[in-house]
Amino acid sequence: MPHITLPTDEPGILGLFRFRPETAGPLNQLVEVLLRGDSTLSRGERELIAAYVSSLNSCRFCFSSHAAFAAAQLPEGMTLVEQVRADPDGAPIPAKTKALLAIAAAVQQGGQEVSDKHVEAARAEGATDLEIHDTVLIAAAFCMFNRYVDGLGTFAPDDPAGYAEMAKVIVAEGYGTH
Amino acid sequence: MPHITLPTDEPGILGLFRFRPETAGPLNQLVEVLLRGDSTLSRGERELIAAYVSSLNSCRFCFSSHAAFAAAQLPEGMTLVEQVRADPDGAPIPAKTKALLAIAAAVQQGGQEVSDKHVEAARAEGATDLEIHDTVLIAAAFCMFNRYVDGLGTFAPDDPAGYAEMAKVIVAEGYGTH
Repeated sequence: MPHITLPTDEPGILGLFRFRPETAGPLNQLVEVLLRGDSTLSRGERELIAAYVSSLNSCRFCFSSHAAFAAAQLPEGMTLVEQVRADPDGAPIPAKTKALLAIAAAVQQGGQEVSDKHVEAARAEGATDLEIHDTVLIAAAFCMFNRYVDGLGTFAPDDPAGYAEMAKVIVAEGYGTH
Repeated sequence: MPHITLPTDEPGILGLFRFRPETAGPLNQLVEVLLRGDSTLSRGERELIAAYVSSLNSCRFCFSSHAAFAAAQLPEGMTLVEQVRADPDGAPIPAKTKALLAIAAAVQQGGQEVSDKHVEAARAEGATDLEIHDTVLIAAAFCMFNRYVDGLGTFAPDDPAGYAEMAKVIVAEGYGTH
């Protein structure tokens, strides 16, 4: 049961958005820019980073949601998301994506854990400053979202169908417009 | 030296805001609502939570900034901020603030670390649902900001005078309007 009384029984962050629309606005704008705005990283790739960090933080609602959003926007679908979750280095993804996921994993541990080596490795695979910046901020933002959702004790459904339904809305309309 | 090339030598998050104005906008709106918007928690009290979490994450730029912003808005000034940093339970602050700081410390460890006991203790001291919500989100947001600032290797000046100058602007004008 959530730690506070929410105006709805919608799961995860959705109930928190209804409770506090003043913070829901900027939070949705932030993910809209980071995960769907103009970028040389694909939307699927960025959702994969979000899902991966949420998995490292053991946030079931955020992982299930962003795994579904990534799967809906990657040709390889959920199989790839699960491969990345289990073993990012062994997953069939480009070396640049692997290097960016390694940066994201360091950020999840703490900002000081990102080393020159992590950044050089990403740059050697062709990552740009903007891609490195956005990877750090996506990873940092999900360290916020995961703590927000779990810190208030919200509910995460088991059924994957609900997350797949949410994915349709996000892919079609984006964050915060519904 | 920062991990990416920034368009300015401004320290900490300031250079990152210049680099990526598209994300600076929602990030500033978020802290404006959380730290300065209408609330039954004072602005000084909310900056204290931000400074405390930044200290737990060892983020020098964010701690120094929000410590200065808290000190500028609390009658007891920097002495109290340093007391809270060193020993929140022993600091001369209300029991409700102590209970909210304990929630913030749990969030810093991870969302699942916030227990019914933490929330009941805050409620027993008179904390409302909105105060509990905002404490969790402030703590979670600084787990993002701290990782963003340190994960990109930004610079944090030693001189407290610069942070005190920043405090004057924040107190007078708020976040993101300058």
